[in-house]
Amino acid sequence: MKKNSIKVGLIQQASSHNTGENLDRIIPEIKRLASMGAELITLQELHNSIYFCQAEDPSIFDLAETIPGESTEILSRVAANNKVVIVSSLFEKRAPGLYHNTAVVFDSDGSIAGKYRKMHIPDDPAYYEKFYFTQGDIGFEPIQTSVGKLGILVCWDQWYPEAARLMALKGAEILIYPTAIGWEHTDAEEEKARQYDAWFTIQRGHAIANGLPLVAINRCGFEPDWTGNTKGITFWGQSFVCGPQGEILFKADSTSSNGFLVEISKNRTEEVRRMWPFFRDRRIDAYGEITKRYID
Amino acid sequence: MKKNSIKVGLIQQASSHNTGENLDRIIPEIKRLASMGAELITLQELHNSIYFCQAEDPSIFDLAETIPGESTEILSRVAANNKVVIVSSLFEKRAPGLYHNTAVVFDSDGSIAGKYRKMHIPDDPAYYEKFYFTQGDIGFEPIQTSVGKLGILVCWDQWYPEAARLMALKGAEILIYPTAIGWEHTDAEEEKARQYDAWFTIQRGHAIANGLPLVAINRCGFEPDWTGNTKGITFWGQSFVCGPQGEILFKADSTSSNGFLVEISKNRTEEVRRMWPFFRDRRIDAYGEITKRYID
Repeated sequence: MKKNSIKVGLIQQASSHNTGENLDRIIPEIKRLASMGAELITLQELHNSIYFCQAEDPSIFDLAETIPGESTEILSRVAANNKVVIVSSLFEKRAPGLYHNTAVVFDSDGSIAGKYRKMHIPDDPAYYEKFYFTQGDIGFEPIQTSVGKLGILVCWDQWYPEAARLMALKGAEILIYPTAIGWEHTDAEEEKARQYDAWFTIQRGHAIANGLPLVAINRCGFEPDWTGNTKGITFWGQSFVCGPQGEILFKADSTSSNGFLVEISKNRTEEVRRMWPFFRDRRIDAYGEITKRYID
Repeated sequence: MKKNSIKVGLIQQASSHNTGENLDRIIPEIKRLASMGAELITLQELHNSIYFCQAEDPSIFDLAETIPGESTEILSRVAANNKVVIVSSLFEKRAPGLYHNTAVVFDSDGSIAGKYRKMHIPDDPAYYEKFYFTQGDIGFEPIQTSVGKLGILVCWDQWYPEAARLMALKGAEILIYPTAIGWEHTDAEEEKARQYDAWFTIQRGHAIANGLPLVAINRCGFEPDWTGNTKGITFWGQSFVCGPQGEILFKADSTSSNGFLVEISKNRTEEVRRMWPFFRDRRIDAYGEITKRYID
């Protein structure tokens, strides 16, 4: 009989400057979640470090590493030892002066199942990612693993329906967004509430549009701006999982630095897409201009 | 000084079989909302009749009319008399055997500013639209009016991020969805809640993805299936308006057959898109395959 659910672990944490310290927090959580039955473990964006894009600092490039490299070797062992698929998020050094924000997926035997290089790169106050990351060149390709085909997208990709759609059209069975988003302290409370709610809502929208379950793993904790330029970011946590109608299956609070285990039905996509067959009615004859910057 | 807000009227109503009766309910509401300052009035999908797609019945085609035709003449006069822009939704007879679900926009001088033929046509139990409507062939073209460029989309279009995106790329300043959606009585209460919430959420998602305000006008009331095939539909009302971060500006309840007036800021799009410049970072080099049915 075909197994019809999957147990997914989400690790939402406050992170420090020190990679070893971060891994020492992550690895025991992976072990704990695996022992509870997790088959797939998802980590937040750039989990090995602080969210260093708060400021433009050339010395930060020292944190980048090759893929494969030291971190992938460690995580590969952790995946194999715990027999879990792991979605990680690393600062990839591809060549001198060429860096990416890259999700690496390990299969439960420890092999690298594939990687995704963040396609949409933000640049706004306190999120200076265009300084650090070259935009991805692998495209929107789901990664085949022993637990299914994973549509990994990263943070800023969250705002682009095109990204989720392409992953779905290529057979992704679940959308996964490692992310690092929070509040800048100068924003008013109502603005903060709108920002968080927009983030939550648009991702649920991608799940609905594509009839897919979705996992978003966000960091938590306050991180000061070491250059003193801004007043720092409070990452808003609230990692969540929703089903293919956008229905909330799990939602963490904004501060818990913790791992969570959520069971996702694999049948719901088929059920929901039969009822709402959006793919059947797409007007592919009329979408061509989506590849334009603006139509004027 | 450039005016930076627009007052929008939404007319959410229970409808009957009788076109005259329906217009007799709609026209006084247009007058009332215009007298309160409405500059743009939005009507629900197929407001002149019941939602006849509950069953496939060839005699229903008698309800269709040409554009221009009787209804457009009436609504044109109402627009001119009340100096308001009106978004209407009609059953268009284009040629024998060729019918569309067509939104017609009247400018405040009574002229027809443009029309939009519903592009995505559903067909699922109690929504047998493929029997009645040929899919639109005008494409996703916003309609220029004296109150701005309107991105009109209709009902099933609500589920397609591509439709909203194309309207936005073509300069729409507001997204408007006349719609007729409700609950079939055999669905469980939790399923009904999920359906409504998915509908509400995905549209807010389109507003967020495109940094545009959005108006959804849905019918209310119970309509029996005159063929006895199903147990009828309870249209869920809850017409709403949200801003460019998806923030709720107005939400009607599920049963009020009424007109509502909502003020929308026209500055917010510029403000929000400066803060979240999604259009800047779209990976138009990597979206080409969106024009495929499926990528396998």
